[in-house]
Amino acid sequence: MAAAPVWSVDPRTGKQREQVAHEATAEEVDRAVRGAHAARAALADRTARAALLRTAADLLDEAGEHVIEAADAETALGPVRLTGELARTTAQLRAFAEVVDEGAFLDVRIDHADADRTPPWPDLRRWKVPLGVVAVYSASNFPLAFSVPGGDTASALAAGCPVVVKAHPDHPATSELCASVLRRAAAEVGLPEDVVNLVHGFEAGVELVRHPLVSAAGFTGSIRGGRALFDAAAARPTPIPFHGELGSLNPVVITEAAAAERAEQIGAGLAGSMTLGEGQFCTKPGFVLAPAGEPGDRLVKSLTTAVSETEPGVMLDHRMRDAFVAGVRERAALPGVDAPITPGAGGEHTVSAGFLTVDAELLATEGAHDLLLEECFGPVTVVARYSSPAEITSVLSRLPGNLTATLQLAEEEADGTAPGAAGLLAELTPLAGRVLVNGWPTGVAVAPAQHHGGPYPATTSTSTSVGATAIERWLRPVSYQSTPAALLPAELRDDNPLDLPRRVDGRPEN
Amino acid sequence: MAAAPVWSVDPRTGKQREQVAHEATAEEVDRAVRGAHAARAALADRTARAALLRTAADLLDEAGEHVIEAADAETALGPVRLTGELARTTAQLRAFAEVVDEGAFLDVRIDHADADRTPPWPDLRRWKVPLGVVAVYSASNFPLAFSVPGGDTASALAAGCPVVVKAHPDHPATSELCASVLRRAAAEVGLPEDVVNLVHGFEAGVELVRHPLVSAAGFTGSIRGGRALFDAAAARPTPIPFHGELGSLNPVVITEAAAAERAEQIGAGLAGSMTLGEGQFCTKPGFVLAPAGEPGDRLVKSLTTAVSETEPGVMLDHRMRDAFVAGVRERAALPGVDAPITPGAGGEHTVSAGFLTVDAELLATEGAHDLLLEECFGPVTVVARYSSPAEITSVLSRLPGNLTATLQLAEEEADGTAPGAAGLLAELTPLAGRVLVNGWPTGVAVAPAQHHGGPYPATTSTSTSVGATAIERWLRPVSYQSTPAALLPAELRDDNPLDLPRRVDGRPEN
Repeated sequence: MAAAPVWSVDPRTGKQREQVAHEATAEEVDRAVRGAHAARAALADRTARAALLRTAADLLDEAGEHVIEAADAETALGPVRLTGELARTTAQLRAFAEVVDEGAFLDVRIDHADADRTPPWPDLRRWKVPLGVVAVYSASNFPLAFSVPGGDTASALAAGCPVVVKAHPDHPATSELCASVLRRAAAEVGLPEDVVNLVHGFEAGVELVRHPLVSAAGFTGSIRGGRALFDAAAARPTPIPFHGELGSLNPVVITEAAAAERAEQIGAGLAGSMTLGEGQFCTKPGFVLAPAGEPGDRLVKSLTTAVSETEPGVMLDHRMRDAFVAGVRERAALPGVDAPITPGAGGEHTVSAGFLTVDAELLATEGAHDLLLEECFGPVTVVARYSSPAEITSVLSRLPGNLTATLQLAEEEADGTAPGAAGLLAELTPLAGRVLVNGWPTGVAVAPAQHHGGPYPATTSTSTSVGATAIERWLRPVSYQSTPAALLPAELRDDNPLDLPRRVDGRPEN
Repeated sequence: MAAAPVWSVDPRTGKQREQVAHEATAEEVDRAVRGAHAARAALADRTARAALLRTAADLLDEAGEHVIEAADAETALGPVRLTGELARTTAQLRAFAEVVDEGAFLDVRIDHADADRTPPWPDLRRWKVPLGVVAVYSASNFPLAFSVPGGDTASALAAGCPVVVKAHPDHPATSELCASVLRRAAAEVGLPEDVVNLVHGFEAGVELVRHPLVSAAGFTGSIRGGRALFDAAAARPTPIPFHGELGSLNPVVITEAAAAERAEQIGAGLAGSMTLGEGQFCTKPGFVLAPAGEPGDRLVKSLTTAVSETEPGVMLDHRMRDAFVAGVRERAALPGVDAPITPGAGGEHTVSAGFLTVDAELLATEGAHDLLLEECFGPVTVVARYSSPAEITSVLSRLPGNLTATLQLAEEEADGTAPGAAGLLAELTPLAGRVLVNGWPTGVAVAPAQHHGGPYPATTSTSTSVGATAIERWLRPVSYQSTPAALLPAELRDDNPLDLPRRVDGRPEN
C-alpha cells in the first residue's frame, strides 16, 4: 500500500496547494523516535542546548519572510498576525536559552551528611535530569508558537530532551520548513539533526505516543483528540506523562458596577478579544456573565455594534468552519437563546462572528442548555445575563476547568473594600490557571511568571505550556547519595563551579 | 447487607485479634470525602497548617507507647523498628511544618508589567494553590511513616489539602488510633477534624479514587494494586494525578575491584540490607551484579555466612508469607539458579531469609529467567555473576525502573580517574531516582534533597514521596494578571509582607 499523501490546503479556497510529504508508517515513526533517542547524549551539554535555541531563533528570523508566507498560505491567519507569532516564537526560544544558562530549573539541592540526625543523614545531592524523547503534537491555530518551533519543542530541547513532532494537518508545509530550519540549527552548533524530527499523519500520532522509547508528550488541540492520546499514554505498559492542553471556555464575569461604569468599553473589548484571529484562540472568552438590567443592556448594545462591524473571515480549515456553523446553529436553537448578531457561515469559505444571549438562570441547573458551557471554536461567545450574585455563583459552580477566568470590576471595587470583588476573585481562582482583572484573556505573554494551563479539560496535568516553568514537564529528579566528589556532575559539587542557584542544607543560596 | 467487619490480625499467629471497624460503604466514602472537601477553606491558613503538623507530631509522640504497641501487635515489626519509625514519622511532620513556614514551595514569581516588550507584558504574579482533597493509600510495610500519619498525609496537609486515608488491612487498629490522634490535633489548633478522614476496605479504595471531589491520590504498595488505581484515576471523566510508588528491584553493581578490596564487608552489608525488616522494604536490594571469579566467590561466601546467621522472622501477613514462599520456590527452580542459602518457609508463621545465584549471561536476553528481574517481596536477593563489563551493561539495559540503584566501588575507583566507575554511574542513573555509592539503599533519610521515586514501576509519576519536594504533588500554579494590589493574596504583593523567597522579574530574590 502506498503511503497516504499529505497535502497543503488553502483554507481560503479549500483547494489543495501541493503535496508536501506522506503520512509516516509505523516503521518511519520508529526510525524517527530511534533517531531522537540516539541524540539524547549530545543534548546533555547545556551550553550546546542554549546555542541550539539561540541559533534556531536566529535562523527562523532569517527565514521569516518565507515562513510567514508558507504559514499564511495554509492557515489564512494573515501576515500581521503571523509576523507577531514568529516574533513570539523566536523570543520564546531565546527565553528558554536564558533558562538553560541560569540553571535554576535543575533545582539543585545539597544536604551534607549529618551525624546528629537519628538515624544519621547521608550526603544527598539532588538535581533534575531530562526524561528522554518527547512527542510534541502541534496545534492547528498556532502554526509556529504551538507547533514545530513552539513552546513544547523549545522547552523540551531546553530540558535536554530530543523531540519528535507530529505535524498538524492544517500546516504541513510550514511544519516541514520549520523542522528543516531547526535541524539546520542543530547542525550549525554541532548537534545531531535528529534532536528534532517530524512525522505526519493521524496514525503516526497514535504510534508515537505508544512508542516504548518516547518518555513524555506535549499536546495542544481538541478535547476529543487530546483525551484519546492521554488515554493511550496512560494505558501503555509503562505510562508516560501527557501534558495536554485540550479546551477552555474562559469565563468572564462583569460586575454590575463595572457595566455601569464602562459598558461601552467592556463591550468593545470583549468583541475584540472574542473575534481576534477568527475566535480561534484557546483563550477566547467563550462565556460571559453580564448583569441583567440597564447597564448590561448597554453592554450588549455596545457588543452588538462592535461585532456587527467585523468582516467575515476564513477559519483554519473547512472542517472547523463546518463545525462552527453547526455548533452555533445548535446553540442558537435552544429555547431562550437569542442572537443579537447571528454567528455562522459567511461566504462559501468564510464565517461571520456573532454572539448569543441567555438568562443565566437557565444555566444554573443541568439541562439542554449545558451545551452553552462547552467551548465552540470560532468567533462566538455566549452572554448569560444574571440577576443576582447568587446566580453568578451557581453558574460558576457548574463550569469545567479553564485556562483563564476574567473579572471586570469598576474602579470602586478594585480597592479591596467591596467584599464582592474579593469574593468573585476567590470563586474564579479554582476554575482556572490564569485569573485576570480588567483585561482580556487572548494574548498570552511569554513571561517567567506565566501559567498557561488549568484544571481539566484545560490541561491534563498541573503544568504550563508557556513560561519558564514549562521546562519542568520534561525533567525528573535524581538524588546521589554518598557519591565521591570526583564522580559527581559539576552541578552537584560543593564549590559550585557553574555558579548555579541552589539550596544547601535546606536553605536557598544564590 | 451488613457492612463487612475489619479485623486486626496477629501475623505471629494468623489469629484475629479484634474487630476494629467495618468496610466503608459507598455512602460512607462519599461522606468522608465531602467532610474533607468542606474542610479545605480552613486549611488555607498556613499558620494553622504548620501548627497542625507540629501538634500532630507532639500528640503522636505522647501516644507513642500505645501506638507502637498497637502497630507491633498487627505487623510484628517489633518495638525497636517501630520506635524508630515513629520518630521518623514525627520528624517528618515537623519537617513539613518548616516547609510550610518557609514558603518556598509556593514558588512565588512576579513579573512586573513591561511596556517595552512586543507585545507589552501585563503584570503577572504566580504562586501555587492546593489541589483539593487528596486520597492517601497506606502501605503495608510502614504502619506509620507511609500510612495514616505518614509522608503523603503530612505533605498533603502541608500543601493545604485535606486527606481521606484508605487504611491498609494489615494494620487497621493502628490506622484508627493514628487517625484519632491527627483529628484531635486538628481540633486542638482550631481546624475541623475532617481535615483527616479514614476509610477501610478494598471497594472503598476504588470508590475513593473515582470520587468527583477527590483531586489527587498518593499510593504506596504493589504494582498490581497501584496500577489498578492508577488506571482508575486516569479513566475518570476528569483524570487526577496519581502518585504511586509500586515496586522496585533496587539493583546493586559490585565492581571486581570492590569485591577484591572488601568482599567480606560488602557481603555482610548486603545481608544486613536485604534481610532488614524481613526484606519488606521497598528499597531492599533485590538484585545484585557481582563478579565471577575469586573475589566474587569470597563475596558469596561472606553473604552465605551472614544470611545463615539470620533467624526466621514473621512477615506482615500470611498472604505475603505465602507469596514469598511461592515466589522464591518458582525462582529457585529455574535452570542454572542455585540457592547457597535456600529462602522460604520457616515455621508455620515465619519465613527464612536466603539468596539465589545465577550467571548474569542468562539474564542478558529475554526468557524464563526474567522472573529474576521482578521484585520478590521478602528476605531474598538474586546475585547474578558477571564475566565482563559488557555483561553488566546488557543486564542493566533490561531492568525496569527503580527507586534506587547502588554502586559498590573500590577506593581506587572513587577518584574519578578510572573510566569504569563514571561509566557505571552513568548507566545506573537512568534506572533510578536515587543512586548510591558504597552504601545500602534501605533507610531513606527524610531530608530536603531526598528523592524517593523513580522510573515506572518505581513510581507512576516523576514525583517523590519523601523529602521537602513531596509537597509539590498536591499543588497547582495560578497566575494573577493585572490584578489590583488590594485584591491580591499577601503572598503576591510587592512589599512581600510574609518575607517569602520568590523570583521577581526572572531573578531569585531572598
